[in-house]
Amino acid sequence: MSGFSFEVKARDGAARTGVIETPRGEIRTPAFMPVGTAGTVKAMFPEDVRATGADVILGNTYHLMLRPGAERVAALGGLHEFMNWPRPILTDSGGYQVMSLSSLRKLTEEGVSFASHIDGSRHMLTPERSIEIQSLLGADIQMQLDECPAIPIAHDRAADSMRLSLRWAARSKRAFEEKAHPGMALFGIVQGANFEDLRRESLDSLMETGFDGYSIGGLAVGEGREEMFRVLDFTTPHMAADKPRYLMGVGKPADIVGAVARGVDMFDCVLPTRAGRHGQAWTRVGAINITNARFADDETPLDPHSACPASRDYSKAYLHHLFKAGEYLGAMLLTWHNLDYYQQLMAGLREAISAGRLGEFIAGFKAQTGEERL
Amino acid sequence: MSGFSFEVKARDGAARTGVIETPRGEIRTPAFMPVGTAGTVKAMFPEDVRATGADVILGNTYHLMLRPGAERVAALGGLHEFMNWPRPILTDSGGYQVMSLSSLRKLTEEGVSFASHIDGSRHMLTPERSIEIQSLLGADIQMQLDECPAIPIAHDRAADSMRLSLRWAARSKRAFEEKAHPGMALFGIVQGANFEDLRRESLDSLMETGFDGYSIGGLAVGEGREEMFRVLDFTTPHMAADKPRYLMGVGKPADIVGAVARGVDMFDCVLPTRAGRHGQAWTRVGAINITNARFADDETPLDPHSACPASRDYSKAYLHHLFKAGEYLGAMLLTWHNLDYYQQLMAGLREAISAGRLGEFIAGFKAQTGEERL
Repeated sequence: MSGFSFEVKARDGAARTGVIETPRGEIRTPAFMPVGTAGTVKAMFPEDVRATGADVILGNTYHLMLRPGAERVAALGGLHEFMNWPRPILTDSGGYQVMSLSSLRKLTEEGVSFASHIDGSRHMLTPERSIEIQSLLGADIQMQLDECPAIPIAHDRAADSMRLSLRWAARSKRAFEEKAHPGMALFGIVQGANFEDLRRESLDSLMETGFDGYSIGGLAVGEGREEMFRVLDFTTPHMAADKPRYLMGVGKPADIVGAVARGVDMFDCVLPTRAGRHGQAWTRVGAINITNARFADDETPLDPHSACPASRDYSKAYLHHLFKAGEYLGAMLLTWHNLDYYQQLMAGLREAISAGRLGEFIAGFKAQTGEERL
Repeated sequence: MSGFSFEVKARDGAARTGVIETPRGEIRTPAFMPVGTAGTVKAMFPEDVRATGADVILGNTYHLMLRPGAERVAALGGLHEFMNWPRPILTDSGGYQVMSLSSLRKLTEEGVSFASHIDGSRHMLTPERSIEIQSLLGADIQMQLDECPAIPIAHDRAADSMRLSLRWAARSKRAFEEKAHPGMALFGIVQGANFEDLRRESLDSLMETGFDGYSIGGLAVGEGREEMFRVLDFTTPHMAADKPRYLMGVGKPADIVGAVARGVDMFDCVLPTRAGRHGQAWTRVGAINITNARFADDETPLDPHSACPASRDYSKAYLHHLFKAGEYLGAMLLTWHNLDYYQQLMAGLREAISAGRLGEFIAGFKAQTGEERL
C-alpha cells in the first residue's frame, strides 16, 4: 500500500493522536470527516470545508452510483476533480444506505439487489462491485461491503450477519487488490452487534486477512451512548495499535469525545450538516435551536471569539430571521458554523492528547456542556 | 445632503460613467445592484457579493417591514449591521411589492392598506411610513412611495396614477427631511406609463421639487424591450444631467446595455439571482439551462477565463448534477456566477464609456449574444 501510512504521534491513556499519510495529503487524527453525500458537503463551498480544518471528507457510494453514476464520475476525472476537493476522500461501501434508503431489497450471499429510491431502477451491489465503484470514484480510503443490523438483535442472527460480512471482507480485499490504484487504502469493518465474543471473532478474522485500517460498524444504530461505549471498551483494546480505527456514523460531540478517550481515530456523521440545515447550532455551552423565539432580538453572534466568519460575523437575531424566512443563507451559515465547531473540537482533542491533558480537556467539556457520562 | 454626491467622469453619446459618493462608500456607475430581498442576496455570502464587484445592493421595504420588522432591524443596529453588508444599500418604497404580493389591498390618497402575505396581518404604507421604515433600516438611498401601473393603460388612468405619485413624492420629501439622517439620499420616481407627455409632466414636477436622483418606474412591466427603449428615448434626455438615473427592476443583460446607451446609470433586477436558483446561467454567448441533458457529461466550466471561482472551478457536468440532485451548492454556484457575469458586464460598460468605445462594445455584445435590437 505505498503512499498510505499511519503514525501515532502521542498517546494519553487509550487515546491516540497521529497522522494518516495519503497521496492526496495528510489526515490529522483524531479526525472528523464531514459527509459529502452526493458529491457535495451540503450547503458548503469546498474551500470553506477545508478552512474549518477538515483534512478528509466522506462520500456515499450508494448516492453516487445512482446519480451521477460511478462510470460518469470516472470519465470526468474522478470524484476529487468532479467536486473540486483535491484532498483525501473516504467512501463507504454503499451497503448501509442500500438497506436504509432503497426499496425491494434482497440480500443474498452474493450481495444485495435493490431498487433506486430516485427512479426505481434495479441495481446489484456486491463486494466486488462496491470496490469497483469506490475505485472508479477514486476514493483514497475505501470500505468493504458489510451488513449492518440494528441493535437489539439475537446472538445467532448477529453471528450469521457478522460472518457474512467477514466473507464479504475477504472478497472485498481480493477485488481491491485487482481494481484499486496504488496509494488507495481498504478498511475492514468489525461487526458483531453488542456481543463481546462476536466483536472479537470479527476483529481477529479481519486482522488475519489484513487491512489498512479497521472500522467499527453497527453502532450508533439506536443502542444508546452507554451501550456504544461498552462495546468500544471491549473492542478497541484488541484493535491493531498501528492502524487507524474508524467509528462509523458517530456522532454527537459527546459521543466523539468519549470514543476518542477509548482509542478511536476517525469519525463521520451527518449531524453537524443536517442539524445546520434545520436551525440547530452547536456552541461551547451545548446545542441551541436558532428558530426559538428567544433569539429574535439577540444581537450576539454564535461565538464572538471564533475565527470562523459564520460563527463570528452574524447575530443570532439575523440567523433566526434567515431560518424564519426560509433563506438559503441560514443553512449555509449554520452548517459552516457547526462544521467549524466540530473541527475545533477535534483540534482541541488532538492538542490535549499531545500534551497529556486529555482528562482535563474532558472535564472542561463536561463542565461546559453538562454532559456527564463520557 | 452632505455625504451624497454624483459626478459624471466621462460620456459617450448619451451614456455616462461616473461615481456616486455615499458615506458608506462609492458606487461606480453604470451600476448593477443585486437584490437582497429579505436582508440577504439569496444563496450568497455578502463577502462574495462584494467580490463580484457590487458596490451597492437593494433591500425590499415590503419584505423587511413584515419580517423581521423595521423597528427590530433598527434596534439591532440597522440593516447594514444586521446583514453584514457595510457598503451602500438602496431600498425601494415597498409600494410595488405591496401591489404584487399582498392581498386585500386598498389604495387611497393617504396610501395603501394591505394584508401581509406571510401571516395576513394588516398594515398601512403611506409615503411618510415608507420613508420612516427606510430610515429605520438605515438605507443610504431611499425611494419615494409611488404607484406603478402595468402597461398598456389608458391615458387618463395613467395620468391620474402619475399625479398621485407626484403628490406622494412631495409628501415623501417632507418626511425624508424630518426623518432621514445626514448623508442619506432620496430619489423621486418618474411615472407616466408609455406616454411622452405624462413622463415629461412627471419629470418636470419632480425636478422642481428636487431630489438626489431620479428613478424611472413603471417599465419592465410587460411592455417589451422596444417599447421600453422608446420610453427611455423620450425621457432620459430631459433628466437632470448631474443626478443619477435609475431604471427600476431592469433587467436582462441586453436591456441593461441598451439602457446604458440611453443614459441610465443604475439598475436592479432579481434575474441573475432568481435564474441562478433555477439552473439558468448567463455566459458570454447567452443564457443556458444547466439542467439540460446535454451538460451531464460536459467537463468544461462556465467560464475558464473568469476570476470567479464559481465560473471557473466547477464543470457544467457537476453543476448539472447538483441541480438534478437538488443540492444547495447548485443554487450557490450559479447565483454567484450570474452575479459575477452581471458585474463583469457593468465593468465592461464603464470601461467602454471611459474609452469612448461604447459602440464597439455594443457591437461585440450583439455579435456574441445574437441580440439585435439594442
